[in-house]
Amino acid sequence: MIVILKQNSNKEQVENLINLLEQQGVTATGINGTHKNILGLVGDTSSIDIENIMAQDVVETVQRVQEPYKKCNRKFHPDDTIIDVCGKKVGGKQFQVIAGPCSVENEDQIIETAEAVKAAGATMLRGGAFKPRTSPYAFQGLHAEGIELLLKAKAATGLPIVTEIMSLEHLDLFADVDIIQVGARNMQNFELLKHLGKCDKPILLKRGLANTIEEWLMSAEYIMAGGNNNVMLCERGIRTFETKTRNTLDISAVPLLKQLSHLPVVVDPSHATGLTSLVEPLSLASVVCGADALIIEVHNCPSKALSDGAQSLTPKQFSDVMAKLKPQVEFIGKTIG
Amino acid sequence: MIVILKQNSNKEQVENLINLLEQQGVTATGINGTHKNILGLVGDTSSIDIENIMAQDVVETVQRVQEPYKKCNRKFHPDDTIIDVCGKKVGGKQFQVIAGPCSVENEDQIIETAEAVKAAGATMLRGGAFKPRTSPYAFQGLHAEGIELLLKAKAATGLPIVTEIMSLEHLDLFADVDIIQVGARNMQNFELLKHLGKCDKPILLKRGLANTIEEWLMSAEYIMAGGNNNVMLCERGIRTFETKTRNTLDISAVPLLKQLSHLPVVVDPSHATGLTSLVEPLSLASVVCGADALIIEVHNCPSKALSDGAQSLTPKQFSDVMAKLKPQVEFIGKTIG
Amino acid sequence: MIVILKQNSNKEQVENLINLLEQQGVTATGINGTHKNILGLVGDTSSIDIENIMAQDVVETVQRVQEPYKKCNRKFHPDDTIIDVCGKKVGGKQFQVIAGPCSVENEDQIIETAEAVKAAGATMLRGGAFKPRTSPYAFQGLHAEGIELLLKAKAATGLPIVTEIMSLEHLDLFADVDIIQVGARNMQNFELLKHLGKCDKPILLKRGLANTIEEWLMSAEYIMAGGNNNVMLCERGIRTFETKTRNTLDISAVPLLKQLSHLPVVVDPSHATGLTSLVEPLSLASVVCGADALIIEVHNCPSKALSDGAQSLTPKQFSDVMAKLKPQVEFIGKTIG
Amino acid sequence: MIVILKQNSNKEQVENLINLLEQQGVTATGINGTHKNILGLVGDTSSIDIENIMAQDVVETVQRVQEPYKKCNRKFHPDDTIIDVCGKKVGGKQFQVIAGPCSVENEDQIIETAEAVKAAGATMLRGGAFKPRTSPYAFQGLHAEGIELLLKAKAATGLPIVTEIMSLEHLDLFADVDIIQVGARNMQNFELLKHLGKCDKPILLKRGLANTIEEWLMSAEYIMAGGNNNVMLCERGIRTFETKTRNTLDISAVPLLKQLSHLPVVVDPSHATGLTSLVEPLSLASVVCGADALIIEVHNCPSKALSDGAQSLTPKQFSDVMAKLKPQVEFIGKTIG
Repeated sequence: MIVILKQNSNKEQVENLINLLEQQGVTATGINGTHKNILGLVGDTSSIDIENIMAQDVVETVQRVQEPYKKCNRKFHPDDTIIDVCGKKVGGKQFQVIAGPCSVENEDQIIETAEAVKAAGATMLRGGAFKPRTSPYAFQGLHAEGIELLLKAKAATGLPIVTEIMSLEHLDLFADVDIIQVGARNMQNFELLKHLGKCDKPILLKRGLANTIEEWLMSAEYIMAGGNNNVMLCERGIRTFETKTRNTLDISAVPLLKQLSHLPVVVDPSHATGLTSLVEPLSLASVVCGADALIIEVHNCPSKALSDGAQSLTPKQFSDVMAKLKPQVEFIGKTIG
Repeated sequence: MIVILKQNSNKEQVENLINLLEQQGVTATGINGTHKNILGLVGDTSSIDIENIMAQDVVETVQRVQEPYKKCNRKFHPDDTIIDVCGKKVGGKQFQVIAGPCSVENEDQIIETAEAVKAAGATMLRGGAFKPRTSPYAFQGLHAEGIELLLKAKAATGLPIVTEIMSLEHLDLFADVDIIQVGARNMQNFELLKHLGKCDKPILLKRGLANTIEEWLMSAEYIMAGGNNNVMLCERGIRTFETKTRNTLDISAVPLLKQLSHLPVVVDPSHATGLTSLVEPLSLASVVCGADALIIEVHNCPSKALSDGAQSLTPKQFSDVMAKLKPQVEFIGKTIG
Repeated sequence: MIVILKQNSNKEQVENLINLLEQQGVTATGINGTHKNILGLVGDTSSIDIENIMAQDVVETVQRVQEPYKKCNRKFHPDDTIIDVCGKKVGGKQFQVIAGPCSVENEDQIIETAEAVKAAGATMLRGGAFKPRTSPYAFQGLHAEGIELLLKAKAATGLPIVTEIMSLEHLDLFADVDIIQVGARNMQNFELLKHLGKCDKPILLKRGLANTIEEWLMSAEYIMAGGNNNVMLCERGIRTFETKTRNTLDISAVPLLKQLSHLPVVVDPSHATGLTSLVEPLSLASVVCGADALIIEVHNCPSKALSDGAQSLTPKQFSDVMAKLKPQVEFIGKTIG
Repeated sequence: MIVILKQNSNKEQVENLINLLEQQGVTATGINGTHKNILGLVGDTSSIDIENIMAQDVVETVQRVQEPYKKCNRKFHPDDTIIDVCGKKVGGKQFQVIAGPCSVENEDQIIETAEAVKAAGATMLRGGAFKPRTSPYAFQGLHAEGIELLLKAKAATGLPIVTEIMSLEHLDLFADVDIIQVGARNMQNFELLKHLGKCDKPILLKRGLANTIEEWLMSAEYIMAGGNNNVMLCERGIRTFETKTRNTLDISAVPLLKQLSHLPVVVDPSHATGLTSLVEPLSLASVVCGADALIIEVHNCPSKALSDGAQSLTPKQFSDVMAKLKPQVEFIGKTIG
């Protein structure tokens, strides 16, 4: 950590600052520049409150040189984390394809869709029981009944299930869910993250609409700090000025996360742009960039979907994507499933 | 609402679509263009599921011509909403200044700060008991004890108190709080909004980091749909590419919200940029743009603050801001308090 | 084009507007909604000045339903444009790899680099003679001498050359250049685009830092409107809030451009993030998304580069990228060269 | 400047780097951290090529602690620059209001508008002769004739004139123009900036759509490095995700520029949002934030404007804005004119 001092700082002020820093367990070494003086801090700077240092009169600014995340940092955990979900591996040489509807709507819909995606090669089932909708007047999901229907679809197909939690008070309902999803709008719902850190289920942590990669890793850190290391990071597009796509897929985040962290990386090519015609190319791009899994919206009849119909693939379209995806996954030396 | 059809749509498809639309209670009138055909919908289109229409094969896209929010829409409620907080009015000719520390840290700190901001002319007290922090290793607030200390500061000064809720499970602790704040990271925590819609306390709803004005109004709509009309909208800066300021204050949002909605508008010039030197000019700008209140970070000793010290004003700095603010508020014909 | 009228518009105003529209050669059909009235325009709306219509008192807003670009629009030109550069094809089943340094610095540097990239499999040479630098105190390029050195490198290796133009006054110097690059900062330098429309050289048009895909296609339209159809669109990353990468590669733009336009698409994975470690995955992603070419920064000795050294690959690193790229290009049925 | 070294750097590599740095005229002092080693550079670091240092093998990253701009930096020039335009001062206690149409269209239009804005209190006239239009099919301005008409309007009213240059080749036509405007799209047209640095006319430098404040100041530095110190910085809104406004006015930039630089600051509230109803509040906000001038679009008949009619005020609307603006300017102790 580097502390840049104000130009007019006097000796006494600097000494007071050095004392304050050393009380926090680090050593401060000064360098006198022509226009600026700086202090370099040596020691475990993760214990330093950067805002407190910035609030000192004599300080112009503070620059961090070390990452603020530890448990999810590849530097301290060089080996890939591989998460086991009902015997299927997320991470490593396995590649998972999670598919299913935006919302669970009724038994026929979820079971038909589950069977269709399984037939096409999907390895897990997604479906929303609690739906975050911009409008209070839109369909909000079937709640407890939705989770029951997902469990029926799991019983029928053997596919592990992934579904989103929106509030702590519903946590008990997720006892038999295989992967709990934290949606983009809850990426910094820190109370929720803390509680998920205390359970032992795999967590699929979606990136917030406008959150940096560092903030996202810090949210993973919240979960891991509680003791749950089974975190997957899911890139789903960020908000930019471009309007032709709903969001902008930050594909660079995939290889960058692989360098910065040991956690598995998932891509959601459906929410990333909202355009079904882009799901195939973006899925292929995710594979060659090192993603460990995809999560794709598929509905047995998109024109009757109660949410996100326009970005859902039909079973036929999904099957066409899988026909391209499978050989590409194998070409880079991985296996689906 | 306007439905734009695909170029190659045939007569039967279009008729099926018209039937579907008319079942939803609207009338569809067609216009045949040279390259595109469109349908104009007449009737109460707020009941139409736009995504469902977009998912129909024959549809290229759908454009809304009416706002999706109703209860907070000025068109349907032309008069300003004025919210009474312990006898002080937010909205109308009164102007409120809410001031206080980022976090409540201990009794001396909150009471000293409360007395200082009151002496300088603040009309309400802010202070965080539950703190959303990017890092799990940072100070997270005093929780229940923090709220108790705020109530002591209220008893000592008579200032109404504003504090942030982070999770539904803490709602009981807010029984004596005067205004409940929903932070930027929770603007789309829809479960929380729904519950706040069922209480009768004033809600200060901060704009999300990267949320549009329309999404923000839809979040206000969530609260109002539950029956609670006491919502204030707080602009606190949005995320952009600029790095010299922590966020970019969207000052245009203030007069625009006044046109679109009847709800009071508050500005947070502290979080907007993170720079204390900009609090004064941005406060003045908010006043002349029609804001109804300001919420400003002040700490009795910023260099010892446990959070956000660098963006907190000292009591002396706050007093200087108030000395500029008061005559400007009066110049435009309003009164502080 | 759809014109949405203000709520309180009277019959006479609407008739006047319809007359104005019909004078511009289109037919206007009205639909009376419950809250809004709209006019649908039929005919060639590309001649309509949308801002003029919006400026009419009675008009609330205007929504376009048709793309404003024609010559680069795939709807009117379904077949891919394939551009011949010294016998090499950009577009179709050929895949080109353009490589070379940010700046041409001296004869040894450019010839050594050209030979190295050719040996590794590059098919064209890039190098800057005129350099757009943020700081007036930074190296600005060798100008005319730089182009001469590029021509020597072309003579030595046979590789066609690509270099950037920054000002019309230099156009004569580009007589023997094979592809003229328009940089991101000049994407909307409309005077430059107009003049390039009158020459017959292939143009590599980079996307502006914060320009939408539609604005980018309109800039291509400027060149094509002058008569030059040899335009390639180069995605090079857009500006977002993320700070770990210099820009955010908008990979979705690649397949989307392929749908919207018939022009070839190039990706610059070097400028896209500024991180050499991401060049390989982003190159592979571009291939599978349908790009026709890559443009990659390579320097014979990056640590001595006068510009962009930190994002340039060494010849060895480039050779490693090519070793991964070639089989991937062939796997999707294309050939490099 | 601080150089952060890679973790595994050995002594010899570090010594080589120190030699390289010292050859560039600075002294490098090392600090050995627990996880990272850093070098602090002392001396005139503006001569250091930051990219060259970053390209060294042993270097992880480089952080600047000093601003890269000098001539426009307030640290080195504490007094405000005040620019004289035909006897009117931009900067200091004077406040200028520049008004006029987007484009000069014909003699009647520009003279009528000039007389109307003068009558309402404007102190300078704006009008475009060369128009940057997104579409090649839109009205591009009257060019030389446009400038002649502006000069006629100046002769008729005495108002100094401001008009935009789009290309170096037109520079001769600007001989009698009082302020040359560089548009947002040309803010990084460095060749143009260099030439404008060699003339002695006042330059109104608009901020680019997505350029940081630092990049903007570096563009001012380009002009000043050529010898022309008469640069005004014009904030005109930046590109963000918000869609209700055309751009987002970065009002914080006004007081921040006043701290960072001694140059006068102008605000364009018309382009900032594209909404006429926001011109008045944003003008008032600019005044209280310390702006030195406003540039506002006014057209004698917006519904007949050939460009930007929808964002132009009528003379009556402009007169109403001036009626609010004048007392506010006087309230803060400045005078219009």
